[in-house]
Amino acid sequence: MKEISILEIPQHLDQEVTMKSWVFNFRSSGKIYFLQLRDGSGRIQAVVSKDNVSEEAWKVCEQLTMESSVEVMGKAQEDKRSPFGYEMQVKDIKLIQRAEEYPISKKEHGVDFLMDKRHLWVRSERQVAIMTVRDEIIWQMREFFRQEGFVLTDAPILTPTSCEGTTTLFETDYFGEKAYLSQSGQLYLEAMAMALGKVY
Amino acid sequence: MKEISILEIPQHLDQEVTMKSWVFNFRSSGKIYFLQLRDGSGRIQAVVSKDNVSEEAWKVCEQLTMESSVEVMGKAQEDKRSPFGYEMQVKDIKLIQRAEEYPISKKEHGVDFLMDKRHLWVRSERQVAIMTVRDEIIWQMREFFRQEGFVLTDAPILTPTSCEGTTTLFETDYFGEKAYLSQSGQLYLEAMAMALGKVY
Repeated sequence: MKEISILEIPQHLDQEVTMKSWVFNFRSSGKIYFLQLRDGSGRIQAVVSKDNVSEEAWKVCEQLTMESSVEVMGKAQEDKRSPFGYEMQVKDIKLIQRAEEYPISKKEHGVDFLMDKRHLWVRSERQVAIMTVRDEIIWQMREFFRQEGFVLTDAPILTPTSCEGTTTLFETDYFGEKAYLSQSGQLYLEAMAMALGKVY
Repeated sequence: MKEISILEIPQHLDQEVTMKSWVFNFRSSGKIYFLQLRDGSGRIQAVVSKDNVSEEAWKVCEQLTMESSVEVMGKAQEDKRSPFGYEMQVKDIKLIQRAEEYPISKKEHGVDFLMDKRHLWVRSERQVAIMTVRDEIIWQMREFFRQEGFVLTDAPILTPTSCEGTTTLFETDYFGEKAYLSQSGQLYLEAMAMALGKVY
């Protein structure tokens, strides 16, 4: 069976596919489990009906916790009612890892608490959106420079001297000599602009 | 008159254009100057005939030094004999800045000497080629990740702890606390991979 990412769902409607994902939320109405899945590429709702799956698969659902990782097999259809646009009817589900005691729940958490759990907080929808937008903005800037004929120039992180005010300077020991975290790529870009013309 | 870069020459053959560039080499045979020009986008030979230019323009040629910057006006043609593929017949030339005592000459220099003049050495053909290839390689890698659906993730430069051996660790004072230059983005990428799936 073909393994796809959630992003590829629209190209594989009504086909039997496998998806590996995390369960970011779920609810049950006795004979049906609604699983909210994410795999980094997107989000989708998967529906498990007790009548359609094996006893073993149903037991997997009963053990699920937030952020457990699963492999689901089934067919996806368009579904205008779903916030994700698509819904999967699950034929089989396997537990890859059961996540215990996930500390971030649906209730409101303070920023202090969330910063302390930053490695988990980044899994949430808003944080993923921020990272994705960030990726897009940086890509578009780089692509613009590339299209305009600019050449990438990376300035060193450690420099032997300060470029700007010394009050904001980070000093470190560089094999017996003092070195500083670079405050500006300006000096290097200026020298490179004389060599390569357009640089970024 | 249209101002173009050397890279754009093929699209403007036999048209009067202006180019701003550096003179990286030149030779004279009494009534003709052969100028080797570069502007970062490419290299071209420009020919100045005493009969075709004003007295003022001819004086500019007589003052030229290596790495002086000039504005040249003229028409470019294809020229199979030229190593650059194109040659420009100059109608007028203006001196933007006369570079005095350029320390890097055609003779062999040691790496020590050249590293000491690194900001000038990067103007040479081999160094420009290296930077351009570097730019291309990094671009192609980023484009590959982008096309495969990976999301850019930058890890912090300063971290509160060491990821690898402490003998190679650079320590700095971070507002009263000890911080270290990051040795690895691994920890951050691992956390982000759980949020975004494919990251780079």
